[in-house]
Amino acid sequence: MPQTSISILGIPGLPEVRPGDDLASTIASTVRLAGDDLRDQDIVVIAQKIVSKAEGRLVRLSSITPSPAAAQWAKEFDKDARVVEVVLAESRRVVRMERGIVISETSHGFVCANAGVDTSNVPDGYVSLLPEDPDKSAARIRDSLERELGVKLAVVICDTFGRPWREGLVNVAIGVAGIAPLIDYRGQVDSYGRALHVTVIAIADELASAAELVMKKRDGVPVAVVRGFEYERRAASSSELIRHESLDLFR
Amino acid sequence: MPQTSISILGIPGLPEVRPGDDLASTIASTVRLAGDDLRDQDIVVIAQKIVSKAEGRLVRLSSITPSPAAAQWAKEFDKDARVVEVVLAESRRVVRMERGIVISETSHGFVCANAGVDTSNVPDGYVSLLPEDPDKSAARIRDSLERELGVKLAVVICDTFGRPWREGLVNVAIGVAGIAPLIDYRGQVDSYGRALHVTVIAIADELASAAELVMKKRDGVPVAVVRGFEYERRAASSSELIRHESLDLFR
Repeated sequence: MPQTSISILGIPGLPEVRPGDDLASTIASTVRLAGDDLRDQDIVVIAQKIVSKAEGRLVRLSSITPSPAAAQWAKEFDKDARVVEVVLAESRRVVRMERGIVISETSHGFVCANAGVDTSNVPDGYVSLLPEDPDKSAARIRDSLERELGVKLAVVICDTFGRPWREGLVNVAIGVAGIAPLIDYRGQVDSYGRALHVTVIAIADELASAAELVMKKRDGVPVAVVRGFEYERRAASSSELIRHESLDLFR
Repeated sequence: MPQTSISILGIPGLPEVRPGDDLASTIASTVRLAGDDLRDQDIVVIAQKIVSKAEGRLVRLSSITPSPAAAQWAKEFDKDARVVEVVLAESRRVVRMERGIVISETSHGFVCANAGVDTSNVPDGYVSLLPEDPDKSAARIRDSLERELGVKLAVVICDTFGRPWREGLVNVAIGVAGIAPLIDYRGQVDSYGRALHVTVIAIADELASAAELVMKKRDGVPVAVVRGFEYERRAASSSELIRHESLDLFR
């Protein structure tokens, strides 16, 4: 069809990522090994887990002493008290803590389950934390990739978050570099010539969701490329995606 | 790159949709006019607005008499009392109603702003409602398209919803036909051989978000095709995407 067309490409064959790895180099050589390249305007979407691993954001549970409160709550809901302790330590505010579920606000301002602390796809006895500054991680990876490959890119770091009211997780953006995460259509007119209201689209989250369609099973393919999508290239921060507390009806 | 690859194709040139139109026919002939076809396994993603229009789900505001409560609230927040009245009539329960914002649960069970009532991209003096039964709408369109084009398809009807805690709207699925809206990875193991927890992915929502990337500006391109995505073909309902009240911490 002669129309707008976007491709989402999964990048397979990435080796297991370890603390200290240069993720940009690993991605660049995996792309090269596949006999391909990245192109100007490509958006590289990277699963949080491998960014956290490369940055050594892993906590050995045997090093954690749970607080009495964490121990009590963990016992009540049959959870690992050390994991609960790490979750609370990663939370700057607890939004809900009931029925064995912790929804909290991370230091970055993201509201999500378990403050982004995850026990899957990490070595036994460890949990992973979110990157300390996912925007900085995204910017660093983008800079390296652009230098190494000689193209202009955007990078989105993503994680799967749950949502109130709806079942299932969806992939969202937790770090961005080189792409405006929101598109604001306010001030433009609809097809009847009237101003569009409330029409800010969270494009970075939609890109993350699109990328998840090829990532599948979470960490099977932790890197995807979105090609053919036109976007506003600029310095940006994932904090633009976080609703200010004063405007949020569900804090 | 020799890997998983998905295409998202916007279908341009759809004529203005009017009440009573056969949307499947319109889509089929628009695809043909573009000199192309749909293929087996394609997922046709359709913006709610044109489904509502075809089904005559438009309300003339001059026919509405606001209740005193709606009038009072509208006055306080500088809203059109007739729109507020329609929103409340479309709500089976109000979740939040403050600062000029109504978050409510629709008859379908969706929790969203204004019960899905929308004033943009409709004729002057009208508002649009969500389809009465978006799954049924999706099934009807799918059946017609399959019959007319001789291929096996899935259909997702989508709308842009806001979310707590995050800025910007994202496209989500409000009706599905022929595709399981959730993928459940529980019971599968991660790359370290341990069971994956909490790994149900809302694939229909991610498909809707992916489609929005080519729809842009909401109703500029109200139909998109996702090609190359493998999915579970089965009878399905968007109600699977709605978290049961008893499991929801934010009702």
